[in-house]
Amino acid sequence: MDAAEFRRRGKEMVDYVADYLENIEQRPVYPDLEPGYLRSLIPTEAPLEPESYEEIMHDVERVIMPGVTHWHSPNFFAYFPAASSYPAMVADMLCGAIGCIGFSWAASPACTELETVMLDWLGKMLHLPESFIAGTQGHGGGVIQGTASEATLMALLAARCKTVRRVLATDSKKSESEILSKLVAYTSDQAHSSVERAALIGAVMMRKVPTDEHYAVREEMLRKMLEEDKAAGLIPFYFCATLGTTPSCAFDHIMELGPLCNKENMWMHIDAAYAGSAFICPEFRPLLDGIEYADSFNFNPHKFLLVNFDCSAMWVKKRADIIGAFKMEPLYLKHENQESAGLVTDYRHWQIPLGRRFRSLKLWFVFRMYGLKGLQAHIRKQVALAKEFESLVRADKRFEICAEVVLGLVCFRLKGSNELNQNLLKKITKSRELHLVPCQLSGRFVLRFAICARSTESRHIQQAWRHITQLAFELLQEQPH
Amino acid sequence: MDAAEFRRRGKEMVDYVADYLENIEQRPVYPDLEPGYLRSLIPTEAPLEPESYEEIMHDVERVIMPGVTHWHSPNFFAYFPAASSYPAMVADMLCGAIGCIGFSWAASPACTELETVMLDWLGKMLHLPESFIAGTQGHGGGVIQGTASEATLMALLAARCKTVRRVLATDSKKSESEILSKLVAYTSDQAHSSVERAALIGAVMMRKVPTDEHYAVREEMLRKMLEEDKAAGLIPFYFCATLGTTPSCAFDHIMELGPLCNKENMWMHIDAAYAGSAFICPEFRPLLDGIEYADSFNFNPHKFLLVNFDCSAMWVKKRADIIGAFKMEPLYLKHENQESAGLVTDYRHWQIPLGRRFRSLKLWFVFRMYGLKGLQAHIRKQVALAKEFESLVRADKRFEICAEVVLGLVCFRLKGSNELNQNLLKKITKSRELHLVPCQLSGRFVLRFAICARSTESRHIQQAWRHITQLAFELLQEQPH
Repeated sequence: MDAAEFRRRGKEMVDYVADYLENIEQRPVYPDLEPGYLRSLIPTEAPLEPESYEEIMHDVERVIMPGVTHWHSPNFFAYFPAASSYPAMVADMLCGAIGCIGFSWAASPACTELETVMLDWLGKMLHLPESFIAGTQGHGGGVIQGTASEATLMALLAARCKTVRRVLATDSKKSESEILSKLVAYTSDQAHSSVERAALIGAVMMRKVPTDEHYAVREEMLRKMLEEDKAAGLIPFYFCATLGTTPSCAFDHIMELGPLCNKENMWMHIDAAYAGSAFICPEFRPLLDGIEYADSFNFNPHKFLLVNFDCSAMWVKKRADIIGAFKMEPLYLKHENQESAGLVTDYRHWQIPLGRRFRSLKLWFVFRMYGLKGLQAHIRKQVALAKEFESLVRADKRFEICAEVVLGLVCFRLKGSNELNQNLLKKITKSRELHLVPCQLSGRFVLRFAICARSTESRHIQQAWRHITQLAFELLQEQPH
Repeated sequence: MDAAEFRRRGKEMVDYVADYLENIEQRPVYPDLEPGYLRSLIPTEAPLEPESYEEIMHDVERVIMPGVTHWHSPNFFAYFPAASSYPAMVADMLCGAIGCIGFSWAASPACTELETVMLDWLGKMLHLPESFIAGTQGHGGGVIQGTASEATLMALLAARCKTVRRVLATDSKKSESEILSKLVAYTSDQAHSSVERAALIGAVMMRKVPTDEHYAVREEMLRKMLEEDKAAGLIPFYFCATLGTTPSCAFDHIMELGPLCNKENMWMHIDAAYAGSAFICPEFRPLLDGIEYADSFNFNPHKFLLVNFDCSAMWVKKRADIIGAFKMEPLYLKHENQESAGLVTDYRHWQIPLGRRFRSLKLWFVFRMYGLKGLQAHIRKQVALAKEFESLVRADKRFEICAEVVLGLVCFRLKGSNELNQNLLKKITKSRELHLVPCQLSGRFVLRFAICARSTESRHIQQAWRHITQLAFELLQEQPH
């Protein structure tokens, strides 16, 4: 494919993409096939000679589309949203064409500098404390990570390194491995599995803090655990708070927890992967109060802020903490304007991978084409749709709401056994008209209804509820009395 | 931007991309600006109201392009190539539109299944041993990682977990942290900085194995270190071999090293980030001999195989080793067809992040639109250009070649001091007609000339050499005699 053919095929693909998204509702949201379906549909080896573009696009409909779970269908209510917008997609095309690998400032200055400024823009939209903003003189600043999992891990590794150094400085008789074996990280028993995984990767203990009746961590519970652990000779070093947990969108009380972490010399990381985007609306910003106590903060514009995956925004108060943990300077990566000069950011020190795409272009296009008001309108619309679904559930006495609906997630269930609700979900999944996933709250099997697609409207909510209640009706009819 | 505007703007962007790549030679390959240039060119905050697409595209030329290091310019010879091809870009548009987050089979079966089959296709192109191919019954298989750094880290973490379990099983009195503190990983003193970083992240010791006069690790050196370390009570557990080192594209002797690692119960990971693509050509495949001893193998199609970043291909012999290290199963990620069923792959267990894009589409489009023959032709052309440059250098007695030219990288220098060569590189960088980076070989400052862009032709090599010799001439004139 030369440039001339790309001009033709690229434009056809633009139409294919627009057609796909405009007509996505006509496709079953969840595929109906068995594991291993694809292998038999295509050859066992790559072709020796080139094939035509027509053949490939024919196979997209024949091989790929039947196996796609359509995350952007207005009938997709599973997990959390994956953002999608046209400005982000256009920006991604540009990103692919520039194709720089921005591991250092010199590897493409625009790639690094736009990212720093876009994270400042976004930080200001969220009214982050000044200490997180890079500006021209700041000690903090932002970076785009691939996923929240990576942000959690980077924060934990930075905290680990900082704590080991601090303990070594005060007690030089201890060995590094002795200190490592005493470090303890903490997170909510509602936290995402990736937080526990970060501790496994970092080879440190992690303890789960029990939550209150709203599934939130309170200061008292964490304090009690810290006291026990310190008494046992352990070294608490890291607390990952969650704002908007995956099961129920619960919010840890960071206003209480922050001062405790600061007093105990523990790194407080805040994971607001899903909920963070909502903080651009003044009415939701109070949920972030207490951020001033945090050492690092992260959320995913690729969930709720119309920036296609991947784009996870992370800020640190002291960039030296992140950079210091893993700085490596081989000659082939050195350049005249190094980070040590103070002015320059080499983002490779801020992340797990070395290479990185020019992802800030997506932020720039989305921020400018929507404007802050447009982004706020998107958040508010999604939240309103969740509230609409909540009131439908509340009006039906067979059902119950299982957690406060704060943003775009509704946790609900049929009053009755877990088995009953498992059967309801099976019916829903089998129907392939909606897609939901479950969660567990206080030992109960709960259905999660998350507003996901940008194209979801009130009529989809109404239709989804009609569908769910119809299946529930059938299910309850089948039950022995 | 609605679908209708996307149809228009997306097509304009296709033309912008084609224009950019067709005329890239007219742009200076390396930007001429100071750190911090961008901040003053754009507002300090995001706009409240939407802006027009025209304003944004105007700013792409005003703000972004002057700060881009043009990796796809035929005058870019720095680092290693970043792949770029039109089929990959078209596939990426489709990937963005489908926008699924393929962490599990259920999250989009096509995303997972195409990846497994594409890694089989690619493994077969490389004639990997059967044990690395997933097929329908295999215990091994492939995965797309973001970068080679992540593959190295995943392999190290899997090895760490496997070794700790093995030692615990034979000696239950040892504590996990005691075992951890005795683990030693090994890699070449020429290995990429990310290998050392993987050990830092994993909190294990890493020792650098000295290399021979060709910058390659030999069995003897590693064996000597293992014996010393075992005598000191340490536990060797991981060796990362490099095929095609970053400084000079040297090849560790895996035919010798493999049996040693197997005998010592050490995980052997092979990092062939750059060189791996060349193994699709029969004449370069012998460089991979010894792969049968490896536990895991990785290379980057996003470097040398025309698949745009990011796409790093990794294979393991026993998928259970990778998966077992970090398996987490919260209810919201469970589905009816779990990996434990044997048939299904949940790629989230294979990688650091949770989320993942539908990157196998890029492989599928590129393999089919080039065919194996087209991909081989690309590799051969790049290598021939390097050989052409090598012979120009060899014909000039003022210069010397510093390492064998095997693939697309030429390491050369002016005979004389390091300072002289540093000054030559400064002149080259300042001219902005070419872009190179240096490396250090045996204490000498060396210039690396890597064939990078797909559009580089013989005339660019000839012109680059004329330019370098002209600057060298000026430099030597300025020298005191």
